[in-house]
Amino acid sequence: MRKKLVLLASVLLMGLGSGHAGRLVTDSLQSQVLGAVRHYNVYLPNGYEKETDRQYPVLYLLHGLSDTHTGWEKNGRMKIVIDELIGSGECVPMIVIMPEAGGQPTSTVWNGYFNMEGWPYERFFFEEFLPHVEKKYRIIGDKEHRAVSGLSMGGGGSVVYCQRHPEMFSSCYALSGWLDQAVSDEMRKNTTSKHAIVSCSVHDHSAIEFLRKADDATKQKLRTVRWFIDCGDDDFLLEFNEDFHREMRRAGIPCEFRVRNGVHNWEYWHTGLRWSLPFVSRNFGK
Amino acid sequence: MRKKLVLLASVLLMGLGSGHAGRLVTDSLQSQVLGAVRHYNVYLPNGYEKETDRQYPVLYLLHGLSDTHTGWEKNGRMKIVIDELIGSGECVPMIVIMPEAGGQPTSTVWNGYFNMEGWPYERFFFEEFLPHVEKKYRIIGDKEHRAVSGLSMGGGGSVVYCQRHPEMFSSCYALSGWLDQAVSDEMRKNTTSKHAIVSCSVHDHSAIEFLRKADDATKQKLRTVRWFIDCGDDDFLLEFNEDFHREMRRAGIPCEFRVRNGVHNWEYWHTGLRWSLPFVSRNFGK
Amino acid sequence: MRKKLVLLASVLLMGLGSGHAGRLVTDSLQSQVLGAVRHYNVYLPNGYEKETDRQYPVLYLLHGLSDTHTGWEKNGRMKIVIDELIGSGECVPMIVIMPEAGGQPTSTVWNGYFNMEGWPYERFFFEEFLPHVEKKYRIIGDKEHRAVSGLSMGGGGSVVYCQRHPEMFSSCYALSGWLDQAVSDEMRKNTTSKHAIVSCSVHDHSAIEFLRKADDATKQKLRTVRWFIDCGDDDFLLEFNEDFHREMRRAGIPCEFRVRNGVHNWEYWHTGLRWSLPFVSRNFGK
Amino acid sequence: MRKKLVLLASVLLMGLGSGHAGRLVTDSLQSQVLGAVRHYNVYLPNGYEKETDRQYPVLYLLHGLSDTHTGWEKNGRMKIVIDELIGSGECVPMIVIMPEAGGQPTSTVWNGYFNMEGWPYERFFFEEFLPHVEKKYRIIGDKEHRAVSGLSMGGGGSVVYCQRHPEMFSSCYALSGWLDQAVSDEMRKNTTSKHAIVSCSVHDHSAIEFLRKADDATKQKLRTVRWFIDCGDDDFLLEFNEDFHREMRRAGIPCEFRVRNGVHNWEYWHTGLRWSLPFVSRNFGK
Repeated sequence: MRKKLVLLASVLLMGLGSGHAGRLVTDSLQSQVLGAVRHYNVYLPNGYEKETDRQYPVLYLLHGLSDTHTGWEKNGRMKIVIDELIGSGECVPMIVIMPEAGGQPTSTVWNGYFNMEGWPYERFFFEEFLPHVEKKYRIIGDKEHRAVSGLSMGGGGSVVYCQRHPEMFSSCYALSGWLDQAVSDEMRKNTTSKHAIVSCSVHDHSAIEFLRKADDATKQKLRTVRWFIDCGDDDFLLEFNEDFHREMRRAGIPCEFRVRNGVHNWEYWHTGLRWSLPFVSRNFGK
Repeated sequence: MRKKLVLLASVLLMGLGSGHAGRLVTDSLQSQVLGAVRHYNVYLPNGYEKETDRQYPVLYLLHGLSDTHTGWEKNGRMKIVIDELIGSGECVPMIVIMPEAGGQPTSTVWNGYFNMEGWPYERFFFEEFLPHVEKKYRIIGDKEHRAVSGLSMGGGGSVVYCQRHPEMFSSCYALSGWLDQAVSDEMRKNTTSKHAIVSCSVHDHSAIEFLRKADDATKQKLRTVRWFIDCGDDDFLLEFNEDFHREMRRAGIPCEFRVRNGVHNWEYWHTGLRWSLPFVSRNFGK
Repeated sequence: MRKKLVLLASVLLMGLGSGHAGRLVTDSLQSQVLGAVRHYNVYLPNGYEKETDRQYPVLYLLHGLSDTHTGWEKNGRMKIVIDELIGSGECVPMIVIMPEAGGQPTSTVWNGYFNMEGWPYERFFFEEFLPHVEKKYRIIGDKEHRAVSGLSMGGGGSVVYCQRHPEMFSSCYALSGWLDQAVSDEMRKNTTSKHAIVSCSVHDHSAIEFLRKADDATKQKLRTVRWFIDCGDDDFLLEFNEDFHREMRRAGIPCEFRVRNGVHNWEYWHTGLRWSLPFVSRNFGK
Repeated sequence: MRKKLVLLASVLLMGLGSGHAGRLVTDSLQSQVLGAVRHYNVYLPNGYEKETDRQYPVLYLLHGLSDTHTGWEKNGRMKIVIDELIGSGECVPMIVIMPEAGGQPTSTVWNGYFNMEGWPYERFFFEEFLPHVEKKYRIIGDKEHRAVSGLSMGGGGSVVYCQRHPEMFSSCYALSGWLDQAVSDEMRKNTTSKHAIVSCSVHDHSAIEFLRKADDATKQKLRTVRWFIDCGDDDFLLEFNEDFHREMRRAGIPCEFRVRNGVHNWEYWHTGLRWSLPFVSRNFGK
């Protein structure tokens, strides 16, 4: 028989998707390091509440400049993609942590993943935030089951975090990464513009310079991370990404590199999830 | 090493995209046929305002049940995709008309693309709406430069419009099409539920039955349209789409058919734009 | 400007590929069951000779009617694809066994994966061939690390082997599968045409009928296998594949299904490797 | 009814494909310029023999170093791909000309697309070969219906031909292009090694240097060609391709750029046909 009463089915399925729907939660912690409340979003895979003994791999998913912990869902619609990919098995069930490192960069809001005067964010991330969430949620919590990815400023953050803490992450996926930055003398002298301060911090943490200066021992550690660089052919940050990939080749560190069609926008990052989530999944330990 | 002041560039590019950004307009007309104001969205390609002599092909892009003319942008983010595809040449500059055939299907709001008692929507579409927009906007306005696509109820609408008016459209792309519907006696007798009435109208306009009954002359006309059927492997409407494709094969009418991974949701339709827009583009006349 | 002497590099790289090149071996065994020598091809992943303690998952990759154990490489160019996918991590290092179940179907050559009078191939495969290769090569040899895939007659073979031996395979990927066959009385009576005999055996092992008759216990066992059905939209076997997928849905057995563009040809199967190899990889046990 | 006699259908369809099968022809001409017979392959689309008044667009498809006019079919299997893409409408019916500019580069066999002492190939190509084939086959023969593509040495040839003859081609698609070459003094002095001579000719025709020296009028002419650069992330020629794309951006000449997964091998070029053929198709004039 070919015909069915699809209407009720329709209503149900529209709500339920494929039965692999995870859950998004907004949470927060009071940071001693930053002296402020920091919010974050958490994606919990389907079954998290039921399988109360099960621990999961974790992906830290970092937003870009001017954005917050809500961006990956509000603009990037990460949930509908990860639900689908877990459903088809292209992505393993994982917890995704979306921290906040910014907001609108007006004079009163800080931005950035690095330690800056008055904003020791990297210290907050590794000493306070990561231990907090890995305790609060059922996260396995070792290198083999921890990955980091991000877009633009968060792509730069992902790469630099893995360069400075290669013992902590199994893989890194940078989308349209802000991997270096030229700074003028004027920017250096400007101590009130948060934009200028963040730009200087990106320059001071140049992922490209890091590779140029790396000694053999450092390079060997970097080879324990699986790397993926992904940037649009019309992105204004493309050359930094190409330069980074060139340095990785010269250093003999395996690194996937893709240039897809696109600019520095949310369509690039939304579609990027179909690449990044399977990549970090298959590089999680068994 | 090549460094640049990317910050200003960043701000500019975030706003400008790739320089191929079109424009979305909400417009309306007072319908005599329906006795009501009907709204619609229009996508105008980049350059529309400047090249005041240029006429464009048109795509009618139909929404699904319970949705309105705003759905394809609000939920489906059609603009960011079509801007990108026109930019890379995968899609030709075209005008996209997104009509409204519904809204929340409460007792007081009608839905559907067919003529029903009290809601002669198909008549409205062909006698009033299409002539109106093709006059108001710089649309070429012949079969070779007119296409129709839609999702779910709008996918069914697209197919049926092309079956009944093959002389008007060069191509048809149906996403997760509601191409047939079983109806019970109860539904038949229910004259107050708009849901029941719409369901009966879908059954009465079954795209599958239409093919089964088509004579040779009709089949020959259908061969002047290029067809594309696209439905998710976990979609509750999949079998109707398979049955439709089978009948097309039996009738000897060329018809592309794809089953991609997915359910009846906006991620399927958002990604579907990367298939539908190039398809209708390459089937527009030269 | 960065220039380099690429010519020597070129010559070297053309030969070496990405450094992930595995090796193809042709081997054979004297079958007692079939009373004949049977050849097979083996793909051994890069490093197989060096890591002499390492055991690997195995994929049985079955050819189609009129073909032999050489088809997947000679026509399907499987080596260049699997080398690439292992290199990028989309596919795990595995051993691929390509058996021979046929040859040109003249009157003197048998074809087919099932037991037929005078050709007890299924018995040969499970009692003699599989134990032989899993002993001879360093294959892990349990359900969690064994998969089967094939094209056309081999797609049917894959599905039926998993239906009848679900305790042996973790996943099954059927390309353009010959999953059922109508047989006429004439074919039944023809005991000399190998074509007729094979066709009858396909009918007698109908993968679709198997599902229709399956009881709950059988269905439960089938759920321990991960299934993937992949068939071209212009393939003459498409309806059988659709029917199989429908029965899987009715039985509540998860089953991926894709209809891509294409016919019953080697381009479909060559590109299919980019889907099948990652699929069986991610369904191998940890 | 669900079942069918598929066997006969099978045999027929295996031979016929989707009914869009074109034809490959090997042809030759006696070159006065080169003083030798030159062979070439021609792809004629389905219907070429029947529609005797129809003229077609043309794609020149260039092979790489050490290869000949047979490489794109023998190693790249171009026919099965173009048949499929014409069948689905992703590629328009076109004639593809595959010239020969080489062979195994022993001391007695020349290679290369440029004029060298004793091997004035570029002059042969434009003065003798192109006029010959465009007269012999039903080729439209204007810029709007002529494109050029190639791999490696042929990718470099494609780009340089379009740089030096932008009035002749509507689009250019370079796969893994040999766009520049460092040369040592030793290579310069070596007048017997054909390898050294070809390498020097690539350096002397550097596509990157050409852009750096281009004046505004030249850049304006280059904007009348649609460009696409496509190179694998592990290809040894990647940096030349990145440098070329950078110069195109600086010159303000639109140029698509992609880095896909892969090395300098036939799988990259075979899959590249799915990008190049639609690209040149949509840039043919109407």
